[in-house]
Amino acid sequence: MASSLLTRQLAVSLQQNLRLAAPGSRYVSKTATKTVSEFEYDAPSMKTVVPGPKSQELMRQLGEIQNVGAIHFFCNYEESRGNYLVDVDGNRMLDVYTQISSIPIGYNHPALMKVMTNPNNISAFVNRPALGILPPENFPDKLVESLLSIAPSGMTRVQTMACGSCSNENAFKSMFIWYRNKERGYSNPSEEEVSTCMINQSPGCPDLSILSFMGAFHGRTLGCLATTHSKAIHKLDIPSFDWPIAPFPKLQYPLEEFVRENAQEEARCLEEVEDLIVKWRQKGKPVAGIVIEPIQAEGGDNHASPDFFIKLRNIARKHGCAFHVDEVQTGGGATGKFWAHEHWGLDDPADIVSFSKKMLTGGYYHRDELQADKPYRIFNTWMGDPSKNLFLSEVLNVIRRENLLEEVTRSGKALMQGLYALQNQYPHILSSARGQGTFCAIDACDDATRNIIMMKARNKGVFLGSCGERSIRFRPALVFKEYHVHQLLNILNDVLAEHK
Amino acid sequence: MASSLLTRQLAVSLQQNLRLAAPGSRYVSKTATKTVSEFEYDAPSMKTVVPGPKSQELMRQLGEIQNVGAIHFFCNYEESRGNYLVDVDGNRMLDVYTQISSIPIGYNHPALMKVMTNPNNISAFVNRPALGILPPENFPDKLVESLLSIAPSGMTRVQTMACGSCSNENAFKSMFIWYRNKERGYSNPSEEEVSTCMINQSPGCPDLSILSFMGAFHGRTLGCLATTHSKAIHKLDIPSFDWPIAPFPKLQYPLEEFVRENAQEEARCLEEVEDLIVKWRQKGKPVAGIVIEPIQAEGGDNHASPDFFIKLRNIARKHGCAFHVDEVQTGGGATGKFWAHEHWGLDDPADIVSFSKKMLTGGYYHRDELQADKPYRIFNTWMGDPSKNLFLSEVLNVIRRENLLEEVTRSGKALMQGLYALQNQYPHILSSARGQGTFCAIDACDDATRNIIMMKARNKGVFLGSCGERSIRFRPALVFKEYHVHQLLNILNDVLAEHK
Repeated sequence: MASSLLTRQLAVSLQQNLRLAAPGSRYVSKTATKTVSEFEYDAPSMKTVVPGPKSQELMRQLGEIQNVGAIHFFCNYEESRGNYLVDVDGNRMLDVYTQISSIPIGYNHPALMKVMTNPNNISAFVNRPALGILPPENFPDKLVESLLSIAPSGMTRVQTMACGSCSNENAFKSMFIWYRNKERGYSNPSEEEVSTCMINQSPGCPDLSILSFMGAFHGRTLGCLATTHSKAIHKLDIPSFDWPIAPFPKLQYPLEEFVRENAQEEARCLEEVEDLIVKWRQKGKPVAGIVIEPIQAEGGDNHASPDFFIKLRNIARKHGCAFHVDEVQTGGGATGKFWAHEHWGLDDPADIVSFSKKMLTGGYYHRDELQADKPYRIFNTWMGDPSKNLFLSEVLNVIRRENLLEEVTRSGKALMQGLYALQNQYPHILSSARGQGTFCAIDACDDATRNIIMMKARNKGVFLGSCGERSIRFRPALVFKEYHVHQLLNILNDVLAEHK
Repeated sequence: MASSLLTRQLAVSLQQNLRLAAPGSRYVSKTATKTVSEFEYDAPSMKTVVPGPKSQELMRQLGEIQNVGAIHFFCNYEESRGNYLVDVDGNRMLDVYTQISSIPIGYNHPALMKVMTNPNNISAFVNRPALGILPPENFPDKLVESLLSIAPSGMTRVQTMACGSCSNENAFKSMFIWYRNKERGYSNPSEEEVSTCMINQSPGCPDLSILSFMGAFHGRTLGCLATTHSKAIHKLDIPSFDWPIAPFPKLQYPLEEFVRENAQEEARCLEEVEDLIVKWRQKGKPVAGIVIEPIQAEGGDNHASPDFFIKLRNIARKHGCAFHVDEVQTGGGATGKFWAHEHWGLDDPADIVSFSKKMLTGGYYHRDELQADKPYRIFNTWMGDPSKNLFLSEVLNVIRRENLLEEVTRSGKALMQGLYALQNQYPHILSSARGQGTFCAIDACDDATRNIIMMKARNKGVFLGSCGERSIRFRPALVFKEYHVHQLLNILNDVLAEHK
């Protein structure tokens, strides 16, 4: 029961010495030193293979209601805490995937529990407003205190939305509206535009496009999906738009050892971007905006250099396209900065930065000029959820108070060192370790090996995510400390040592 | 402060006798009899014109962050309760719009407050899971207890989503996947399909379409928007799909007085539907699904007969198209049945029924065969929010315990009688009163008059919504009783009596 969670902390800390530490050799990693707070567990603890019998029974039950093919196991969220996810069979795993990278400061963080027990907050949960027409009194203050306090450079305005896909869909709409307003010289739309838009025809619904990159993931609603190109299973059978798709640089890692080769590859891709912009303009489908992830996540943790992004921003500027940075997965601190694109040092800021996941609310920041000129153009019933802003405010307090961005940088270094050591030790299995902060990944030799490693790690108490064709992605919470890094590395090492 | 809300009920009930009842003549309506619970206020109470000075100042502040053109006023949700919405200037209004029809049982309902204070529920709020991969232990049970307990006839499965647009987008995707699986005989996709889908081209991204109706509103993301045809401001400048759009019957009201004329009009529209299906198949863009609202809401509260919908369902069946009933606005009890389409008496159930708003969570029910054949085809990070399911469970308990569907039917009859009386008394101003349950509307003679009536009503303490070109829509909560109906009618009567 959640009610007893806080009161059980003492008992937990007393029990800690009785628990077994993670088993296995310590070849690649120094002995894990316990520096985490008393609040969480100190190690994984496995009772069954995963999924265990209770998970399997629940899967059978849910299978009568939904497709359960993607379900790993069922969770006991009440008993989970910090970096440790507990399942219904009593298995406790170090969580390095964190609900597809959406848990910012671990499970049942005491600061978030407090939000729930503060009577001043109840109304925000019970009375969900239609924010676009009837916001609560504290809404401007809460935006200033939460989202605007961490606004990326150049971003003066923010629009909340319910999820990542809705954030990107509405960001795209903002770019289309901005682009057409420019084209028509900010005058009123013609009668023809007004009448044709009602029947999905141009000029009212113009043949504009968004340029995206091969390997990108920007969501799964129909607009987003037209810019998503990571896996066929996402896109098969769904109608789409004829929008340009540029190659994303295929870099060699470690980046610092392949500077010249990678620069050539990036130049090739940028050239293709310009060609596509010209070609699509000639086709009568001008590019209103370019959307890109700072690190392609779902598509395989593909990196590019700050130089690439700066030049891409310049190309967008030169051709009059909006520049949209999708920080849905990279945002919120995991790269060691609050926004991954802050690593680039852009002089000319992005036009739009979208977010969700660790931010707990979806939404997007934008420059002044990207704001829709009239009400009801960017709109829906809820337009976000003020109760999520309450949690976000508290998450930001914790990040500041506990210097979690520094923590991420420190843990990220330890993680990268460990991954380099592992790939040196197992070069026939692992390669291309790469990362920024704790937003890291490594490639297995093939898909099957990747999946076996992940399954074995899970049964030893480390829960990981995959991405791309044969990558393992590391997406711990911001409270993932060096202690946890070593726990992770030791278990990975055990798995690899056992691997034939 | 929300904390003091429940404890203040006694004080409130003591003060009730001191408050002024709603002013004005009682021409159209019998004296309002107080039958509501002690929990809520007993009448509107206005201190300023709306928006008052505090709302205006907050609008200025928020205007520096967002477009505020759609904002009516800022709310004090802590002080709102039941059917009464309190604004930041201390004005208390009878709320007949309920956050665009999304508040099921009024503000700060004690049953919902209790959900917040139950320690067993805290974890569901604090740890939002990625439902598609790691559901909580109680997820199957909660679905059975909440959404499945009210599943429409023929609907065995349900998928939760975060909002109405995402629900419809994913419902569309389910129909496309189902349609293509049928076409390819449930065999594996070809290599060409797999490779072309990655670059948005057919056959992988096929030229399939969804047939929608003029005047429809199904949401604002790009897929939904291609089926939305209610107002140009929603669609202007946004690229769209060349999908067929059928005329929605333009009926004459009251329906029972124009049976023959309306049947002819409906026959005309159904004929056009079949023509469009054939035409789009010939164009190489076959109709995978038909989507329709039981009552077109945003488009002007346009009704059609059960016979129309039954025939439409048969057309869908005949041509192999899925039949999707969008109950985002009509669902949840406001028509006197839990689902508006239950009024039709379909023998052959719909294939998909989508919902959101009053259901507090988005999602859609579907028949077995509409379930995607593989995991990760219908998927996103959150796939809903279990904390919303907790509130929904409690809302359903209240609806059952307090027989709110009967209440809605009773209040709806009183409301329709009153609207008929008003349009008889002011035939130069009002016409076409129509409704089902409390899901009612009436037309003003023109847009300007409609807006003046709504503004004057607001300043007298009744908050209303608009729809279509010149309609007023009534969207009270399910706890809107005859007492509130008479309060509404008396104030409307005052406004109309004053109107030149």
